[in-house]
Amino acid sequence: MTLSTLPETPGELRGLMRKGELVRPTSGMAPGHVQANLAILPRDLAFDFLLFCQRNPKPCPLLEVVEAGEVEPKQFAAGADLRYDVPLYRVYQNGEMSAEIEDLGGFWRDDLVSFLLGCSFSFETALIRAGIEMRHIKSNTNVPMFITNIQTTPAGAFSGPMVVSMRPIPRGKVVRAVQVTSRFPAVHGAPVHIGEPEAIGVADLFAPDFGDPVEIKEGEVPVFWACGVTPQSVAMSVKPPLMITHSPGYMFITDKKDEDLAVL
Amino acid sequence: MTLSTLPETPGELRGLMRKGELVRPTSGMAPGHVQANLAILPRDLAFDFLLFCQRNPKPCPLLEVVEAGEVEPKQFAAGADLRYDVPLYRVYQNGEMSAEIEDLGGFWRDDLVSFLLGCSFSFETALIRAGIEMRHIKSNTNVPMFITNIQTTPAGAFSGPMVVSMRPIPRGKVVRAVQVTSRFPAVHGAPVHIGEPEAIGVADLFAPDFGDPVEIKEGEVPVFWACGVTPQSVAMSVKPPLMITHSPGYMFITDKKDEDLAVL
Repeated sequence: MTLSTLPETPGELRGLMRKGELVRPTSGMAPGHVQANLAILPRDLAFDFLLFCQRNPKPCPLLEVVEAGEVEPKQFAAGADLRYDVPLYRVYQNGEMSAEIEDLGGFWRDDLVSFLLGCSFSFETALIRAGIEMRHIKSNTNVPMFITNIQTTPAGAFSGPMVVSMRPIPRGKVVRAVQVTSRFPAVHGAPVHIGEPEAIGVADLFAPDFGDPVEIKEGEVPVFWACGVTPQSVAMSVKPPLMITHSPGYMFITDKKDEDLAVL
Repeated sequence: MTLSTLPETPGELRGLMRKGELVRPTSGMAPGHVQANLAILPRDLAFDFLLFCQRNPKPCPLLEVVEAGEVEPKQFAAGADLRYDVPLYRVYQNGEMSAEIEDLGGFWRDDLVSFLLGCSFSFETALIRAGIEMRHIKSNTNVPMFITNIQTTPAGAFSGPMVVSMRPIPRGKVVRAVQVTSRFPAVHGAPVHIGEPEAIGVADLFAPDFGDPVEIKEGEVPVFWACGVTPQSVAMSVKPPLMITHSPGYMFITDKKDEDLAVL
């Protein structure tokens, strides 16, 4: 199946994933619908991780928490099953990846708590609609991401630096980019920094810590947004006995529309 | 001391409260500064209560969580001590009020987690600045509050109906009232309902479940906002072995300004 022959509704797409018939990155699927990052942790770490998200809403915009013993995200995708409806999962044991698998049937335990976090796909759609080109999408690469000197607010065992993504924005569109993304606090919201990479500890704009470098043209300003890699990197540094995430790019597709998340 | 002879900074006011020299309702103190509701629960209920707040941000706008073993809300009032810096506390045991006291020295335990929640004082200031009269303030009574048929989203043991507050707004200012309060999601945000009390289960506008009735003049529309009484009433119905709150009106005064909470 090519992207254009796939079903268009989130529910039908999740149905194919559940049967193991759709194992591929979800970019471009169910346009206009919210896609989410997934992090699953044992209950004894869940309070600290929930508190970490509450204290750091820009890098960790919490969409929904599914309690221990449950697998259905009732608010964002009623009827879905988080053990099967993501195309590809990564299992980490003591901070090391031990498996990349298509379903969690064999790994599921009743003490696991699932966290769905906002993903930048939603706010990039809003920026593109506002006539702002996303350089990394145009060049078909991954967005450049940097570890900064901005410290997150710790909670229990969880602490560490904020990771940001960078998008070059034409000088005349920077204000508009701030306005557009401010409407979407549930998917990282307004930028955390505009213009001076060194001020946030980024030494070389063309040597990102994750993702790929992009061209910055004359008259463009580097603009930095809090990035969803932050909670995973922070959680991983705790080396929990078990942590499960989606595989990068293989997101959970929800029933909510991007506009449902807008604050105004 | 009259209100006008009190010190103006939150830190000085908390200093007087800590010494037991300022035991009175905090309305009007440190104008422009955020005042907060306080709820304290044992750690074994903290995850469920935190999750309840995350799922119900309009009635339960979480400002800060202070972990077990700690007493200082570092983000909203560095240096403060939640055991002493609220003028008056209520202690509930198994859902029944057992004491009303000026400090928590004798009740404090290392497994208590403290939750600071936004209070409507902040958004009422914004409404008044927008030229909208607050009837209950003018009549020097408590805002009328109603138990609705709107169900909160449960979390663990916590569930129950949303409590709302009602303010009569002139028809021509309803849109402005929505806009002004939308800027402050951290203190209940936009209204949950405009105009038809019966649609949300309110049978008699002049017989509130809590607070006092107010006049509704010709050309005014009843507008309903989610109310901070919700988390306390929901928590109380769980009848936790121990729960501590501020006494109604005797709030915790933080160092943050109302405008610090605005989203745009």
